Amino acid sequence: MNTWFPVAQDSDFSIYNLPYGVFSVSGDAPRAGIAIGDSIVDLKALAATGAIDSLDIDSAVFAETTLNSFISLGKTKTNGLRLAVQAMLCDENSALKANESVFVKQSDATMHMPVSVGDYTDFYASIDHATNVGSMFRDPANALFPNWKHLPVGYHGRASSIVVSGTDLKRPKGQTIPPNSDQPVFGPSARVDFELEMGFIIGKENGLGNSVSTKDAQEYIFGFVMFNDWSARDIQKWEYVPLGPFLAKNFGSNISAWVVTTEALEGFKTPGPVQDPAVLPYLQIEGDQNYEVNLDVYIQTPNGDENLVSQSNFKYMYWSATQMVAHHTVNGCNIRVGDMMASGTISGPEPHQYGSMLELAWAGSKPLTMKDGTERKFINDNDTVVMRGYAERDGKRIGFGDVSCKILPAE
Amino acid sequence: MNTWFPVAQDSDFSIYNLPYGVFSVSGDAPRAGIAIGDSIVDLKALAATGAIDSLDIDSAVFAETTLNSFISLGKTKTNGLRLAVQAMLCDENSALKANESVFVKQSDATMHMPVSVGDYTDFYASIDHATNVGSMFRDPANALFPNWKHLPVGYHGRASSIVVSGTDLKRPKGQTIPPNSDQPVFGPSARVDFELEMGFIIGKENGLGNSVSTKDAQEYIFGFVMFNDWSARDIQKWEYVPLGPFLAKNFGSNISAWVVTTEALEGFKTPGPVQDPAVLPYLQIEGDQNYEVNLDVYIQTPNGDENLVSQSNFKYMYWSATQMVAHHTVNGCNIRVGDMMASGTISGPEPHQYGSMLELAWAGSKPLTMKDGTERKFINDNDTVVMRGYAERDGKRIGFGDVSCKILPAE
Repeated sequence: MNTWFPVAQDSDFSIYNLPYGVFSVSGDAPRAGIAIGDSIVDLKALAATGAIDSLDIDSAVFAETTLNSFISLGKTKTNGLRLAVQAMLCDENSALKANESVFVKQSDATMHMPVSVGDYTDFYASIDHATNVGSMFRDPANALFPNWKHLPVGYHGRASSIVVSGTDLKRPKGQTIPPNSDQPVFGPSARVDFELEMGFIIGKENGLGNSVSTKDAQEYIFGFVMFNDWSARDIQKWEYVPLGPFLAKNFGSNISAWVVTTEALEGFKTPGPVQDPAVLPYLQIEGDQNYEVNLDVYIQTPNGDENLVSQSNFKYMYWSATQMVAHHTVNGCNIRVGDMMASGTISGPEPHQYGSMLELAWAGSKPLTMKDGTERKFINDNDTVVMRGYAERDGKRIGFGDVSCKILPAE
Repeated sequence: MNTWFPVAQDSDFSIYNLPYGVFSVSGDAPRAGIAIGDSIVDLKALAATGAIDSLDIDSAVFAETTLNSFISLGKTKTNGLRLAVQAMLCDENSALKANESVFVKQSDATMHMPVSVGDYTDFYASIDHATNVGSMFRDPANALFPNWKHLPVGYHGRASSIVVSGTDLKRPKGQTIPPNSDQPVFGPSARVDFELEMGFIIGKENGLGNSVSTKDAQEYIFGFVMFNDWSARDIQKWEYVPLGPFLAKNFGSNISAWVVTTEALEGFKTPGPVQDPAVLPYLQIEGDQNYEVNLDVYIQTPNGDENLVSQSNFKYMYWSATQMVAHHTVNGCNIRVGDMMASGTISGPEPHQYGSMLELAWAGSKPLTMKDGTERKFINDNDTVVMRGYAERDGKRIGFGDVSCKILPAE
């Protein structure tokens, strides 16, 4: 596939990708766009040219501040539009070529949350991560809880504090318990950590009381984003028994601004692990359900150096997104357009593939040395964590753009 | 205070209450109303008479399908309107008296969710409930976890499946673990249980990164509802380690349709327990922060009998709603208008005051006998659970209306 639009060889936003996002320019109202190369196709402007009239999409959806209404139209429309834009970008005689004003430079745009998130669910679905955490805090010989291989362990997270890449966050304050004490103390968390995750956005509703099968689950997944599920390990340790993480997680999570569609990722599927013991029938899947996506994490120290600290891959998931959707709805729980589900920390089997500082520095016992000579057990004030993800196969490359966030000092 | 509107002595919706809700009549669009006696003041219709022009409220908010926009106007407007309606209901010469068409019979109306819930947080804040559960499943001598008296333990729940009273729910299916087995099985939950809770609705935003003090917290609470946080105990037992309840809870929760405002409840405050050990400064409160609200739970067996199974009271909370708001935001987590927080199961110290079947029938060991001679350890198919709450003091009575839900057989 050849596009007439200039796209750099290593661009995340190749002609094969065309992810959806919400952007604004110099204070204009946020609106929908598709990323191509270093630019954005302004969908509101494109619709105004009449070039996509045949798709029969109410152009008002492009002028909304989130993609929820657009996504609600269904994949026939949303992927139909993506394919139409792709075709135009490959056709020298297309309306797009004739209307340069439809393109906006990404460097001129401000990105916004692509969706209004109804509910956010976080899973715990990487076996290497769960094994690492279980080994560290419990027993290396019994690192996984008895339920772990039978169901994708998940819990509800906070939707309100999911913010787009580039939104910085203050170090959270809270209760922690000093070693050998039974009296908690209050103050800034000393163990702020990233969690390298992938999120996916629900694109179809099941309605309360209705389950979604693993076979149908992909239809319910609009697309994927990278997800940094910030965690305060010391707050979590004290608060999480018996009902799970709360303030340790809900001070903020960052997502990448561009939603890479399920259709764009289709060519990057790969087999997941053999699930042994066999899972219950409602969780069984056929065919490749994992995705091969390189996931890198950098710590930018305050002097601007980028330190690559993790090189993981989405393919290491034990549980697939389709299994998560089937499990989430098997009790009749309703999922809605814009809901976010995330994978949990994605660690690979090798130490340089671990997806959190907790694992990379093994609970503080193996600090990482930065280029500037300083050490990190967790994330310092004014460090910026940047995550980048991309898939590459058969000369085709698609990426997610950065997820970036600086941790500001507590106030 | 005397109203010219006929209100039964034992009505939940006295002149002192005037809760807000969303209703529709014979398929009309849902809109905002205030309950009085057996009727509803149609706020859209009231605004159209010009009687509340002086309050300077954009009447479009009354025609929305949720109260979120109205609540966002702030307490000066929302309580101002409530007081204005109260004054008109006490004034024989008021515009309300002259416009009978502004009143709708509750028996002619269908009630809807009063708000669009952004995020839902459930707490675990009744000491008798936490002690009962800890005694049953762990150790009566150490029933409470070490953190319990230092912070209001809370976790994120599912917003999408919070439904209004009268919405019936299917018995959830899921994984459970048979006794003495390490192989889970799949099927309908055999331990569906109610949880008697109070919910409160957030009425003011703090913005990401900003904490709310206990002193300011009440300003952020628009009002209260009764809340049945349905639970599948057998699903929960297997899934909840280590990240908390998930599918055991998110198949559905019911709330009462009318939101009783913080202002209406002001006259029913009562001291909470002495908190010992003393809590950290950010959780300390002054003055009475609990509410004295009688809470009754009935099981309606399929033959229609009502069996009173629990008589609890909101006053038994260890942690106040204001402490929950302060704790929730101390890390900078943002709360939004329409967010729901719930108390957790409210049990009193006496066995007839326990707020769940788990406690009332003590994990199945003490079944309750119904009027029809059948026994209940948990909730059967086609049982309807009805919760009723009311406060009474100095001849004033305000109530919440019913929270009612039938458990339908699994499909």
